[in-house]
Amino acid sequence: MKINKHYGEIKESYLFAEIAKKVNTFKQNHPDTPIYRLGIGDVTLPLSNKVVNSMRMAVDDMSKKETFHGYGDEQGYMFLRESIAKHYKKYGVNLDLKEIFISDGAKSDLGNILDLFDIENTAMVTDPVYPVYVDSNVMSGRKIKYLKANKENGFLPMPNENDFADIIYLCSPNNPTGAVYNREQLKIWIDFALKNDSVILFDSAYEYFIEDDLPHSIYEIENSKKCAIEFCSYSKTAGFTGVRCGYTIVPLELERDGFNLNKMWLRRQTTKFNGVAYIVQKAATSVFDGDEKEIKDAIEYYKENAKTIAKTLDELGIFYVGGKNSPYIFFECPNNMYSWDFFDLLLEKANVVGTPGAGFGENGKNYFRLTAFSDKENTKQAMINFTKLVKEL
Amino acid sequence: MKINKHYGEIKESYLFAEIAKKVNTFKQNHPDTPIYRLGIGDVTLPLSNKVVNSMRMAVDDMSKKETFHGYGDEQGYMFLRESIAKHYKKYGVNLDLKEIFISDGAKSDLGNILDLFDIENTAMVTDPVYPVYVDSNVMSGRKIKYLKANKENGFLPMPNENDFADIIYLCSPNNPTGAVYNREQLKIWIDFALKNDSVILFDSAYEYFIEDDLPHSIYEIENSKKCAIEFCSYSKTAGFTGVRCGYTIVPLELERDGFNLNKMWLRRQTTKFNGVAYIVQKAATSVFDGDEKEIKDAIEYYKENAKTIAKTLDELGIFYVGGKNSPYIFFECPNNMYSWDFFDLLLEKANVVGTPGAGFGENGKNYFRLTAFSDKENTKQAMINFTKLVKEL
Repeated sequence: MKINKHYGEIKESYLFAEIAKKVNTFKQNHPDTPIYRLGIGDVTLPLSNKVVNSMRMAVDDMSKKETFHGYGDEQGYMFLRESIAKHYKKYGVNLDLKEIFISDGAKSDLGNILDLFDIENTAMVTDPVYPVYVDSNVMSGRKIKYLKANKENGFLPMPNENDFADIIYLCSPNNPTGAVYNREQLKIWIDFALKNDSVILFDSAYEYFIEDDLPHSIYEIENSKKCAIEFCSYSKTAGFTGVRCGYTIVPLELERDGFNLNKMWLRRQTTKFNGVAYIVQKAATSVFDGDEKEIKDAIEYYKENAKTIAKTLDELGIFYVGGKNSPYIFFECPNNMYSWDFFDLLLEKANVVGTPGAGFGENGKNYFRLTAFSDKENTKQAMINFTKLVKEL
Repeated sequence: MKINKHYGEIKESYLFAEIAKKVNTFKQNHPDTPIYRLGIGDVTLPLSNKVVNSMRMAVDDMSKKETFHGYGDEQGYMFLRESIAKHYKKYGVNLDLKEIFISDGAKSDLGNILDLFDIENTAMVTDPVYPVYVDSNVMSGRKIKYLKANKENGFLPMPNENDFADIIYLCSPNNPTGAVYNREQLKIWIDFALKNDSVILFDSAYEYFIEDDLPHSIYEIENSKKCAIEFCSYSKTAGFTGVRCGYTIVPLELERDGFNLNKMWLRRQTTKFNGVAYIVQKAATSVFDGDEKEIKDAIEYYKENAKTIAKTLDELGIFYVGGKNSPYIFFECPNNMYSWDFFDLLLEKANVVGTPGAGFGENGKNYFRLTAFSDKENTKQAMINFTKLVKEL
């Protein structure tokens, strides 16, 4: 019996465990001090009324023999796929319903999609990076190339002519930096991928936060269906982190090495997955139902928090990316401090919890992430404390 | 760009598509003839009242900020894992909560668990077989050994001293045959696995149908925690095929090749999975809550159907396995007919739909599967028609 030895090559991630440990120690030493948590990537507002109503109706369906639903359609219910296709139409993207696969979340599909590719393929990620892209490749023995995201390129690295990779991860709006590629930049990536026969794995989980004229989907760009798979999710769009529903688009025309990737993904999913709960799919269908006011109001609430953070950083003259078109703000630590040192200082002096950029890669080591998912009042107080701290440095 | 070429080696399965095609043709030619569907592996009764009530309360929780749940606990909520541990106690099995992993269904985990093993490992399956075991291994390039399940061994094959395999699939009660291993047989399998350093993947999805003194869990047998991973699901136990919730047990003491498989699975799941909906986990928690009457009533309903089928086969003197301790009945086709020929005959003359054993492997080619998941009245009428047909043969 041989074990997949690549599991021994994954770096243990202590990021959030280490943060929790430090916060707990602080709390023990300062039991009466309020802590402002701006480190979380999880939503905090409840589900919208219309989503809740859809869920209730779906639960009713499941309680009666005539309307009970067992195993669902292989790629997800047509009603949900139709509503997603309609959503993409708003961005000028036409999808065949066969191109849409419903899943329990973008993270699962981003990991599982690798089943389709040969182990010898090289994967390219940006640094800082969402750790799942790296770990899921290391686990299966693939080599990783890191592309520097930094102040010089606005944390939006572009391809280097001579730096080949088979699989290219792009996350836009980016986690953890909040930076967003524009159309011209994505066009360059697509041309690069087509030239090299690469496949782009495009993570658009935060697309609903975009307000400027920036691409929500890679399929807004010409020729992208020949080289890109897109992963999206209701998690951040509609507060579904605890509901679990995402969607992956695999174009019908996407072919590599004599294989059709759409057919392969269908085969993978029908063999190693059995669909998403009827109740969840019904709830998701009400998200893009033509009346998105409630959903948008929640996003607006988080974006107000992002503005509060961005305004503070502007006033203090601190360089940052994100904060607009994204729930994340990634800023340069004052005095170019090491991000873990700044973490300690921020917790100790301002009672604010964030995420040290070092946890996302080498290029994040002097950067820090704050998120917009906290309370409005907490965010305001956190930034008052933050300002006071930075001014005293 | 190289694609995982093993996808080209999976046999296309036309089983259920072919059945659907034949049934549709029959319906077109005989629009007024009622059809009795005893081929389905999907449940048909609605969710129990207590499950529905739990779901409703959980939806309420998700609608309010104070009780909203975002991302859940990594391995699943403690309340659900505790209720599963309690369920196992009834079978005399003690589980550490760290050994229990909540998933969206046994099928996902049975496929994904293979991430942990080296590609060079050999997998052993019984024939007839649940196709997922085979396809998921072929997809990653593993060799398969088939172990004959037939009339001689009561469709419960035992290991052959000289027939080594790294990964051994056992499904008991079996899909598709309904046969159930007893304690002595499982003991032999465990000794075999331990001797050869193999890992048993034990699929117990149908355990709740067991009424005789037979093992519900492989962990009822000594030393099994040193060599077995168990996969179970609420799908058949509580009608959750459209709700999606299962659980996988990876013992803390299970080690191979210097790796701890429990830690590996935790790493796999936290990297490539993000948990099951709060609502679904709450609903699942009410299944094993100490009062299982409603759940048992539904199982009893299906088992009555199984009895109806078994009684008919007994009266006709047809050899079969299953029908007790299982929702499946696997019988020898009359006159040793080829199972697809019997399928056609049964549909044409008795208007009954079943599943040809040939679809599950070479050793099923003269066998036929009927399931207990249909209506009581339909099942009765189907078996009246069946009897008439067989007597005329």
